[in-house]
Amino acid sequence: MASSVIPKEVNPDIQKERDGASFSSEEFAAWWAGGQDDLKFYRELRDYLQKDINADEFLQIQNLSHEEINDFAVRTSLEAAKKLRRLQEERNPGGEDYWPNLYDHKVTWGVTPAGNPFGVMYVMLIQALEAQCTPEQYENFGKRMKNFEICGTYAQTELGHGTYLRGLETRADFDPKTDEFVLNTPKISSYKFWPGGLGHSSNYCLVMAQLYINNQSKGPHMFFVQVRDEETHEPLPGVHIGDIGKKMGFIGINNGFLGLKDVRIPRTRMLMRHAQVNPDGSYVSSPANVLTYFAMVRSRCVITYNNSSMLAVAATIATRYSAVRRQSPIEPKAREPQILDHVTQQMKLFPEIATSLAHRVASDYLWKLYEVTIEDIGNGIYERLPELHSLSCALKVTCSSDTTAGIERLRLACGGHGYLISSNLSNLYVLATAACTYEGENTVLLLQIGRFLMKSWNSALSGAPLAPTVSYLSEVQQNPEFGAWTGTWENMVKAMKYAAANKTRLAFNSLSTRISQGESEGNAANQTGIEFTYAAELHGRAYVFSSFTTEVTGPNAKNRSPELNRVLENLLELYLVKETLNQLSNLLRFINLTDKDLTSLQERLEAVLTKLRPDAVAIVDGFDFSDLQLNSTLGSYDGNAYERIFDAALKNPMNQKPVPKSFQEILKPFMKSNM
Amino acid sequence: MASSVIPKEVNPDIQKERDGASFSSEEFAAWWAGGQDDLKFYRELRDYLQKDINADEFLQIQNLSHEEINDFAVRTSLEAAKKLRRLQEERNPGGEDYWPNLYDHKVTWGVTPAGNPFGVMYVMLIQALEAQCTPEQYENFGKRMKNFEICGTYAQTELGHGTYLRGLETRADFDPKTDEFVLNTPKISSYKFWPGGLGHSSNYCLVMAQLYINNQSKGPHMFFVQVRDEETHEPLPGVHIGDIGKKMGFIGINNGFLGLKDVRIPRTRMLMRHAQVNPDGSYVSSPANVLTYFAMVRSRCVITYNNSSMLAVAATIATRYSAVRRQSPIEPKAREPQILDHVTQQMKLFPEIATSLAHRVASDYLWKLYEVTIEDIGNGIYERLPELHSLSCALKVTCSSDTTAGIERLRLACGGHGYLISSNLSNLYVLATAACTYEGENTVLLLQIGRFLMKSWNSALSGAPLAPTVSYLSEVQQNPEFGAWTGTWENMVKAMKYAAANKTRLAFNSLSTRISQGESEGNAANQTGIEFTYAAELHGRAYVFSSFTTEVTGPNAKNRSPELNRVLENLLELYLVKETLNQLSNLLRFINLTDKDLTSLQERLEAVLTKLRPDAVAIVDGFDFSDLQLNSTLGSYDGNAYERIFDAALKNPMNQKPVPKSFQEILKPFMKSNM
Repeated sequence: MASSVIPKEVNPDIQKERDGASFSSEEFAAWWAGGQDDLKFYRELRDYLQKDINADEFLQIQNLSHEEINDFAVRTSLEAAKKLRRLQEERNPGGEDYWPNLYDHKVTWGVTPAGNPFGVMYVMLIQALEAQCTPEQYENFGKRMKNFEICGTYAQTELGHGTYLRGLETRADFDPKTDEFVLNTPKISSYKFWPGGLGHSSNYCLVMAQLYINNQSKGPHMFFVQVRDEETHEPLPGVHIGDIGKKMGFIGINNGFLGLKDVRIPRTRMLMRHAQVNPDGSYVSSPANVLTYFAMVRSRCVITYNNSSMLAVAATIATRYSAVRRQSPIEPKAREPQILDHVTQQMKLFPEIATSLAHRVASDYLWKLYEVTIEDIGNGIYERLPELHSLSCALKVTCSSDTTAGIERLRLACGGHGYLISSNLSNLYVLATAACTYEGENTVLLLQIGRFLMKSWNSALSGAPLAPTVSYLSEVQQNPEFGAWTGTWENMVKAMKYAAANKTRLAFNSLSTRISQGESEGNAANQTGIEFTYAAELHGRAYVFSSFTTEVTGPNAKNRSPELNRVLENLLELYLVKETLNQLSNLLRFINLTDKDLTSLQERLEAVLTKLRPDAVAIVDGFDFSDLQLNSTLGSYDGNAYERIFDAALKNPMNQKPVPKSFQEILKPFMKSNM
Repeated sequence: MASSVIPKEVNPDIQKERDGASFSSEEFAAWWAGGQDDLKFYRELRDYLQKDINADEFLQIQNLSHEEINDFAVRTSLEAAKKLRRLQEERNPGGEDYWPNLYDHKVTWGVTPAGNPFGVMYVMLIQALEAQCTPEQYENFGKRMKNFEICGTYAQTELGHGTYLRGLETRADFDPKTDEFVLNTPKISSYKFWPGGLGHSSNYCLVMAQLYINNQSKGPHMFFVQVRDEETHEPLPGVHIGDIGKKMGFIGINNGFLGLKDVRIPRTRMLMRHAQVNPDGSYVSSPANVLTYFAMVRSRCVITYNNSSMLAVAATIATRYSAVRRQSPIEPKAREPQILDHVTQQMKLFPEIATSLAHRVASDYLWKLYEVTIEDIGNGIYERLPELHSLSCALKVTCSSDTTAGIERLRLACGGHGYLISSNLSNLYVLATAACTYEGENTVLLLQIGRFLMKSWNSALSGAPLAPTVSYLSEVQQNPEFGAWTGTWENMVKAMKYAAANKTRLAFNSLSTRISQGESEGNAANQTGIEFTYAAELHGRAYVFSSFTTEVTGPNAKNRSPELNRVLENLLELYLVKETLNQLSNLLRFINLTDKDLTSLQERLEAVLTKLRPDAVAIVDGFDFSDLQLNSTLGSYDGNAYERIFDAALKNPMNQKPVPKSFQEILKPFMKSNM
């Protein structure tokens, strides 16, 4: 595997792109990273983490068996942990800024290409322990987990239940005689199923189970359960545990199943900061648990941020590849151009670059609202919560679904080679699409947002004030005419809000009609479900429109050079125009656009693609992903795509001997025998 | 792996669905299969092929290494070949109706779940040999290939070239001194790359290369080249050959690369039925080669048919799963319903059932046109060819892109479990999406269709008659007003054609304007590319609208029971209404629909979902796929989804020992060391 066909030179076609850009990729990178200091910090950290990595090995992992891939994931994840611990020790002993805080940061993605089976432990489990343990409990076992003396995961989802928490079947019965809980998964459908790292990378679990006292249900609670022996890793008695088999992605995450049969744990292993069970079996219920609620909001903020990054990774790969591939002359006898010159190719690439930026900005604005809300909560003010909850759901849905579709468009833009595992595009696709399902399935969330919009619409009808991000609903109620379409950015933002408000109105009317005709609220809501989702989708999109426009045209522009601002304005123009065209049916229903207006939108679309063409490669360079973070033969910085594709092919295990054994065993006898 | 947790009983929730259907699944199945006799024939054949298959093994293949998967694919593909040969021998010796004709029929999909590395050989290579060999050549090596005495593939695509044939870099120089061709792939980008079965499952190749005589190019021609020794399978001198590594699907197809360095073959190994090179180096060029052209048309017909079947497979899996999964109460205190009762879930499933049917019907109608055209060609009439070519491209694009999106919606409708490899949905997704790229990349085809529409529009402007499937363009030119929207099926078909014609008009105007402003034709076409694709997409969709409506409402209805017709009418209603809503922006631009019209469409959508609800499971039963054809833990006929998911998980190789070796080697030392 040592030799390589990859040249040392940068591909001249991609170098030409860099030389011809109208702005500085470095300035873009600093802005995108959140400032020059952050950029420097993460680049140094990345270099440190990526030192000594065998990139060739990383490109081959999907050729391995499921078991080998899982071993690889354990090994690389622990290597990353060691490096971060070492840095912590060297630079800030006793702190947590490197370890564990950066263990799941995207800077580590490049060194854990099969995923991190300990990710759930550090993203969810420890946070849950910190929030739900009593101080003694945290001292007893929370700290051990945080120190990685034991390893574990958060086990909630069951074979038969995902989203609907109250339907969980795992039960924990209190036995006052022994001061223990007895845990059971009574049916196959009750088995815990899916938790990352559960299969073979956990010896403890935080199990969500229905608490029963005297056979009376008290609802779902969390229990800290040992599942494997700390020395031998053998499953404990009554514990049935293993790997759920291969998924379409997350190949090394070791998602697992867990069955429990009369597994006994001390009473003190129920997390009791909020609700408690006393030795006599008396039960103290939890006060309204804002923090649990808040953990979900936070993870949705993380998803929007991460998904915007994945789209940027895919856009980098596809744009660089499009700069070095030449195909199909535009003029009959001319040389084949870079495919980046085909307008239909630009239409596949540039809108996704713009979308990744729009989502990233929306995610930043969401984080700001999150922080303000945290502060409010500290002051005992909970009013923003429903708004923030709903907005975080809306952005999670918009970003995960748009990112998924966008990565797929980018993959298809790479033609056949986009299907190669070594392109990394299929892997990115799965990472993105999974976010449509986990942490609240998108349709379920859209229905929740829909209900929030119905409530808000109803409040506004009675004159009550609305939260800022839905105040456009009352504005439209008070001023039902859109007015003239002018096609300015501001006008387009207004139009998207106007369409969202009117879709809300239509759904509200359908719901009200059904209820007034005697339908129950549940049935009426179910039957109006499709309209709820329409309104909710536009609500999320309207927020992206407004936050991206504010960022590009608002006061922050002062901190950027005119050259960078011009590029961002082009990306804003593209985003708003293409999304307006995508949502045209919703707009045309409520707003009068003339044929001239529509022709003008098409012309603007084509014009801005042309404007972005010379800057495309420099923009994706500005996203500043290292080759290891891209992990793609198509997207490397040097543009030597064909050589890298070929090099990875040569190094795949099937090519390490000239003739596979199946030839002599099966194929040759068949051809000779005329069977 | 012997024991199983799967009950013998059918899940009562799915049984209830079957008992409550309004029509006979068996009648549907016979209609779908093309008649009672065909249904019986294929069922018997399927039973024969599937006898003795280890279904448990099939669910585990993706857990294997790339090399093991490829061995598995060779083995299963040859097993299928043996069975078909045996049947041929028993039932019609000397014929070809079983072997090789059915080797790539969908009835064999169920027994080759990792794909068939000899598929290209029987789908493309042998057909090419039959069409392009002289009789002596066919006698010499064509027959050996057909008899599977040697094995091979068709090698056209290169690392640097796919769609654009004239850009291929592989060259074959004629050497009159030795009466040989000398083949070379001069650069890395010239390596043949991607052909199925090329890696390790071929000893001969049909290589597409640029013919050079005296260093003068004569364009691409086909050469029959031996690449491996027949006895040892070792690559021959000058041949660099191997596997390209893992793709996102087609896991056992053994796609390969091929480099040639001064490889000499006799002059008689160029396929010479049409063009010839004589020993003195004189060249006889080919007359217009209708048959080559026609082979591409045929393969696009096959794609539309196959993709409609894949969508039906996915719809079967997701619908059955939705009948047995229960989640989230509709009424607050009621039992959790089958998720099939959630209207938003119906909206994910039923439109895809309808689409698979619509595509299947459109594909049947396309085949009929194909057969008429074949007959015409026999009579020396070539007029239909451009129309058929364009229509086959349009349906290939529509079916592949809609199927891809549809399978993904169906996968997402299965929540987390849809991500399991054992659901088979991700595999179906890749099979479907690959059709967007192979046999003419979709965007390239849309641009070709666009050019055909421009020409047709231009002809119509000058009063020339148009081919039947584009005659709507002249109708709209002659009668530019749409008239009243009535919302009948016929009116909706007319509306889609009207929108397609008007998008054609807009693109034509943009193109003409650019040319009149002095742009070259090439540049003008490139800049109008996005509008070409808009028009072309609608052209394909309009054909699906019209053929599906004709099939359901036309004379064929007489051959079906009123019960079956009612179901088909519901599916037609759903297809037309949901696609009309999807295409609303295109319709609203040209046709005046009132708010009442739009509200009515939404109501019709919701109403027909309700009508289809009781028949959904019976409809997918009528698609008549066996459990092995579905190869899915979620979609089996008995509805025991949870048990099958769990059973497949238990049997995955990682669970065959309780503790992975990485625990003692890596994880435990890490936890103990506090490294």
